[in-house]
Amino acid sequence: SVLKSELLQDPSFEFTDHSRQWVDRMLDYNVPGGKLNRGLSVIDSYKSLKQGEELSEDEVFLASVLGWCIEWLQAYFLVLDDIMDNSHTRRGQLCWFRVENVGTIAVNDALLLRNHIPRILKSHFRDKHYYVDLLDIFNEIEFQTASGQMIDLITTLEGQKDLSNYTLPVHRRIVQYKTAYYSFYLPVACALLMAGGNMGNHTNVKSLLIEMGTYFQVQDDYLDCFGDPKVIGKIGTDIADNKCSWLVVQSLQLANEDQKKVLVENYGKADQACVEKVKALYIELDLQEVFALYERNSYEKLLSSIESNPNKAVQAVLKSFLGKIYKRQN
Amino acid sequence: SVLKSELLQDPSFEFTDHSRQWVDRMLDYNVPGGKLNRGLSVIDSYKSLKQGEELSEDEVFLASVLGWCIEWLQAYFLVLDDIMDNSHTRRGQLCWFRVENVGTIAVNDALLLRNHIPRILKSHFRDKHYYVDLLDIFNEIEFQTASGQMIDLITTLEGQKDLSNYTLPVHRRIVQYKTAYYSFYLPVACALLMAGGNMGNHTNVKSLLIEMGTYFQVQDDYLDCFGDPKVIGKIGTDIADNKCSWLVVQSLQLANEDQKKVLVENYGKADQACVEKVKALYIELDLQEVFALYERNSYEKLLSSIESNPNKAVQAVLKSFLGKIYKRQN
Ligand SMILES: [Mg+2]
Ligand SMILES: [Mg+2]
Ligand SMILES: [Mg+2]
Ligand SMILES: [Mg+2]
Ligand SMILES: [Mg+2]
Ligand SMILES: [Mg+2]
Repeated sequence: SVLKSELLQDPSFEFTDHSRQWVDRMLDYNVPGGKLNRGLSVIDSYKSLKQGEELSEDEVFLASVLGWCIEWLQAYFLVLDDIMDNSHTRRGQLCWFRVENVGTIAVNDALLLRNHIPRILKSHFRDKHYYVDLLDIFNEIEFQTASGQMIDLITTLEGQKDLSNYTLPVHRRIVQYKTAYYSFYLPVACALLMAGGNMGNHTNVKSLLIEMGTYFQVQDDYLDCFGDPKVIGKIGTDIADNKCSWLVVQSLQLANEDQKKVLVENYGKADQACVEKVKALYIELDLQEVFALYERNSYEKLLSSIESNPNKAVQAVLKSFLGKIYKRQN
Repeated sequence: SVLKSELLQDPSFEFTDHSRQWVDRMLDYNVPGGKLNRGLSVIDSYKSLKQGEELSEDEVFLASVLGWCIEWLQAYFLVLDDIMDNSHTRRGQLCWFRVENVGTIAVNDALLLRNHIPRILKSHFRDKHYYVDLLDIFNEIEFQTASGQMIDLITTLEGQKDLSNYTLPVHRRIVQYKTAYYSFYLPVACALLMAGGNMGNHTNVKSLLIEMGTYFQVQDDYLDCFGDPKVIGKIGTDIADNKCSWLVVQSLQLANEDQKKVLVENYGKADQACVEKVKALYIELDLQEVFALYERNSYEKLLSSIESNPNKAVQAVLKSFLGKIYKRQN
């Protein structure tokens, strides 16, 4: 891609052939291969904000550049998240840090991915009047995501002492910060900046996007246990990792004393037999049905919020986002 | 400090008591405790650029804020570097990732440290005309540092196959990028921006600072083996880690065939006996003397470059930087 070759020629660094090859391979391994939803959202949002108007080639290009920046951001988070969650696979391949000869170099590779974003922004947006707002929004969202990851990680430490720390408000805070801001809010905020607006005037849209992102992460929690690894491209680790997942929060609410004991004794153990016992309990508690109910409910609430938005074009984008994730299997 | 309490009240994130305590402790553990050379350099440089003029309280405060941003940047790099180098101690205490219950959460903590920088910059410099230049320079220097770390890490992989990859130009490129830019160039560049200038007009100063940073990293390589762990605050790992250190580069140049064999057989092994054999060889090759010569030489070259600068005030800062690092023991 154009962006990749620009990065591999960046004059701020004296590349050798070897280091250029390393970055090249690292980018190919980690940046594409996802669903590209986040990236495409920028273009879709921008189109709808420019309702009716034909987009110039340049506008389409710039919107795609921002879309790719979000994919780069995502790649950076995922590489590190997989290290911290000790995951095995991602997008149907080994996690980057598990690839031969990579190991902890993956930490620095993630930093490179992250550092590519301001390089890309500078080379394509330096002369735009909204350049500084773009830098600020990427910085703010990254901060929120890292803060969300922090509470995800330290809540897990607390949960190792006492599972009763896992409540719905705690879970809501984690997923809102670690997932919703960068996955749903950021693409639209980028498109708005390009179109000359900013989120200050669209607080309803912002909270709606955060809600959608929360719903998206609950699906992720559900699929971690009940999804098909071949379809979702990764093997779930939430139970073994003692994660404050939506599933364990629900089961703690529904379980009787005996069932709670099963959770306390088996949740957060690397042992596969323990994981299976937890899964069996989830099925016993009919969490698949509880989730189906949650999913229908969320969908309807989101849809009616969307329909209360006065702007038909905005409605259309939000509906298309919702349509893409409703009942997703991966 | 003021900055810390601002960060712990950042409205972009809903802190809980627990997460606020975590960040508080993490900052106390990782940000102070260094020599603060980098941070203080900003104030010193700014003072000298304002030759004679009395600085206002506000100017001193802003220069210190930038100084602290560099200390934050340093903390971020060190936390991750220690993970990647599998180090044990840093600044006289356990590396953060080795502290109980921290582990790989340290990866995300480093991201938080890094994300604090734009938060700090935004809260204190958002209305300055040089705000966007500040963001750009921090982004560029971070990119260069991460690129330097990359070649440090992948060169180590190459070196595991064949030590003859370790040459002086390779070493020079690694240390220039991984250390010199952020440690020596960045503080001065920050001070210049504050004073209304920029580095474009000071290319000589820039290359001199890079030279000084290179010399500083050679000292670091030397102290890794020959420094007193109690004084340098860390236990060296370069030999066991198979690093492309200045010492191994020199010894490869000086060694006869038998001595090279000793290197090939013992360098890069975690085994303490192997490490001792390499150290014995370094002493046999009189690397302490080679280093003393290099040190004297570098000092004289740097001093004469400094004295060729037309600006007396600039001369004074650069001399004071050089004075601080010449023959340093930590
Ligand atoms: Mg994960
Ligand atoms: Mg995770
Ligand atoms: Mg998940
Ligand atoms: Mg190190
Ligand atoms: Mg290192
Ligand atoms: Mg060192």
